[in-house]
Amino acid sequence: MALNIPAEVGMPLAEVDTPCLLVDLDAIEHNIERMARVAAEHGVRLRAHAKSHKSPDIAARQIAAGAVGVCCQKVSEAETMVRGGVRDVLISNEVVNPRMLARLAALAATARVIVCVDDADNIAALEAAAAHCGTTVEVLVEIDVGAGRCGVAPGAPACALARAIAAAPHLRFSGLQAYHGPAQHVRAFGDREALIERAIAATRDTVAQLAAQGLDCDIVGGAGSGTYRLEAASGVYNELQCGSYVFMDADYQRIVMADGRPTDDFRNSLFLYTTVMSKTKADKAICDAGLKSHSVDSGLPVVFGRDDIEYIGASDEHGELGDPHDRLVLGDRLMLIPGHCDPTVNLHDWLVGIRGDRVETLWPVAARGMSL
Amino acid sequence: MALNIPAEVGMPLAEVDTPCLLVDLDAIEHNIERMARVAAEHGVRLRAHAKSHKSPDIAARQIAAGAVGVCCQKVSEAETMVRGGVRDVLISNEVVNPRMLARLAALAATARVIVCVDDADNIAALEAAAAHCGTTVEVLVEIDVGAGRCGVAPGAPACALARAIAAAPHLRFSGLQAYHGPAQHVRAFGDREALIERAIAATRDTVAQLAAQGLDCDIVGGAGSGTYRLEAASGVYNELQCGSYVFMDADYQRIVMADGRPTDDFRNSLFLYTTVMSKTKADKAICDAGLKSHSVDSGLPVVFGRDDIEYIGASDEHGELGDPHDRLVLGDRLMLIPGHCDPTVNLHDWLVGIRGDRVETLWPVAARGMSL
Repeated sequence: MALNIPAEVGMPLAEVDTPCLLVDLDAIEHNIERMARVAAEHGVRLRAHAKSHKSPDIAARQIAAGAVGVCCQKVSEAETMVRGGVRDVLISNEVVNPRMLARLAALAATARVIVCVDDADNIAALEAAAAHCGTTVEVLVEIDVGAGRCGVAPGAPACALARAIAAAPHLRFSGLQAYHGPAQHVRAFGDREALIERAIAATRDTVAQLAAQGLDCDIVGGAGSGTYRLEAASGVYNELQCGSYVFMDADYQRIVMADGRPTDDFRNSLFLYTTVMSKTKADKAICDAGLKSHSVDSGLPVVFGRDDIEYIGASDEHGELGDPHDRLVLGDRLMLIPGHCDPTVNLHDWLVGIRGDRVETLWPVAARGMSL
Repeated sequence: MALNIPAEVGMPLAEVDTPCLLVDLDAIEHNIERMARVAAEHGVRLRAHAKSHKSPDIAARQIAAGAVGVCCQKVSEAETMVRGGVRDVLISNEVVNPRMLARLAALAATARVIVCVDDADNIAALEAAAAHCGTTVEVLVEIDVGAGRCGVAPGAPACALARAIAAAPHLRFSGLQAYHGPAQHVRAFGDREALIERAIAATRDTVAQLAAQGLDCDIVGGAGSGTYRLEAASGVYNELQCGSYVFMDADYQRIVMADGRPTDDFRNSLFLYTTVMSKTKADKAICDAGLKSHSVDSGLPVVFGRDDIEYIGASDEHGELGDPHDRLVLGDRLMLIPGHCDPTVNLHDWLVGIRGDRVETLWPVAARGMSL
């Protein structure tokens, strides 16, 4: 990794090597503070999702601002967060592989560890792993509130799993995971609201059914950066799991809030810094940011602050820039707003923290590639 | 990285953690041998492209089979290959950033290092870097043979750059880079052939113009896994730069050869191994291979050996599998043929080499993320 460090602390931005990821520290601090304030105003907890940044340094700043801990998607990611100082981690996902169940159970000896289930056999496997380790693992039942991905149906199927967890000696039933992923990226506010209203209703009903069986939900978790105000105001959800808000990206910029504003006043803090490396045509230029530096699954990046330049195509290590006025020259630098922040960060070993035009800090993407 | 090793040597395949990349050793050995044989039959050199595998272990096998060295796209990638034992590296790309020019010049002290240019100012910067280091860097002029990306126009503009290189005391003019990237993925053979015929004609003409000026091309390089037979038979190209042939992928499977066969008899050797981690719906299942484990820029992966199962959607850490006959159960394993091999490999730290159903070796993806 030593050969891949793109900057040094104190360096002017213009000397930073490319392609690399920049984090605008003023912007990320604004975002962290703002989300913490919204959670506090609604009387709900924030459990920031670390899958977006994969950085214990950023997790520490979120927790210092009031977050109770982090979410992760993978056991190896959770281990990285615990090693980086986080004491309270929810794996907001199912864990199935036997070796990963063993590592999950072991991790519970050193931190609060919570995991999701949607299958009775998986509960039995989790109990066996925790029993083998002599630890207690907290467990949420994941309900499918409309995303159509993981999770059992709300209501009776969820209650049956909750009872199985409560009956397992090394597991603790801690509540519900009720996240609606696809709703986060629905463009129109009214459409997002309709999806989340249904999710809230299904969750409220399941919480009530559980309560009637003597099963209390310490955690009712969900919400992302596109819908969190709805869950926060629901009176049912008590933990928000937003991740992308720290960075934002070109796709999140396309969604519209209740009052018609974009992106709910979070600022773009994440940029892919790139250099024009070839300029042999009048109407276009080639930059050094391609598919190995950013993910195009949610669309191409947007060139920040340059209405005259458009990112029009990506190959492995090259980006094609439309330059209709022939303004770019070899060596020019551009900042790109990535199409999708999470998989873009997962391509990089370092986040270069800048304040104005100077490098202030370097944060390792410690959980980069931690997919086990 | 220690926490992210998905397998141990000797382990049965069924125990390997997922998601991870498998390399079928019988298949990759077949591919390496076959490409080496085609190059030998045509009397051209093979300089295998290491951007596909980013693995000095695979480079060593390609060189043992007859390759003269490797291509890389980045200085940090080239450094990784040299550190891994490769003595002859072409960076088949332009290098512009000052610190990377300095590292490139330094690398030339320990290995044969060749780089491409398409700009006179860049030649001056390269000469300054090599002079500062006291090394000699070999240089190819990149010509745009139809790809429309990097490279100067063939003919006179290329000759002017070649003369500037030849006049620089610490640079050596070594020939032409004449790669047509987009042609590799054109589905119909006739269409690919037409594109490469034009590339060959432009290259032949430029080589002749250079010769008339006393400038000989030690290297006339290009060709990829979709078109290499055409360049090999051209009588002009003398180095093939194929990379993907070691692995193949779902996109390369869609191209058709001259006789109507797919993929020119290279075998799929690269697989993304994945586990069914949620099965709460009759007609689909969720696996643990999403956008952080494979790149969807060239389409979704194909499920290997299972006509009854289709990979229909990817989110960050999940893959959605169409399972119309409700056959999958929790914990089932599948092998996916990635849509695009190069950016998929770049997401992983390890290649798990399997022979039959047993792990035979683990190769680090040493140049993973080396984008500087």
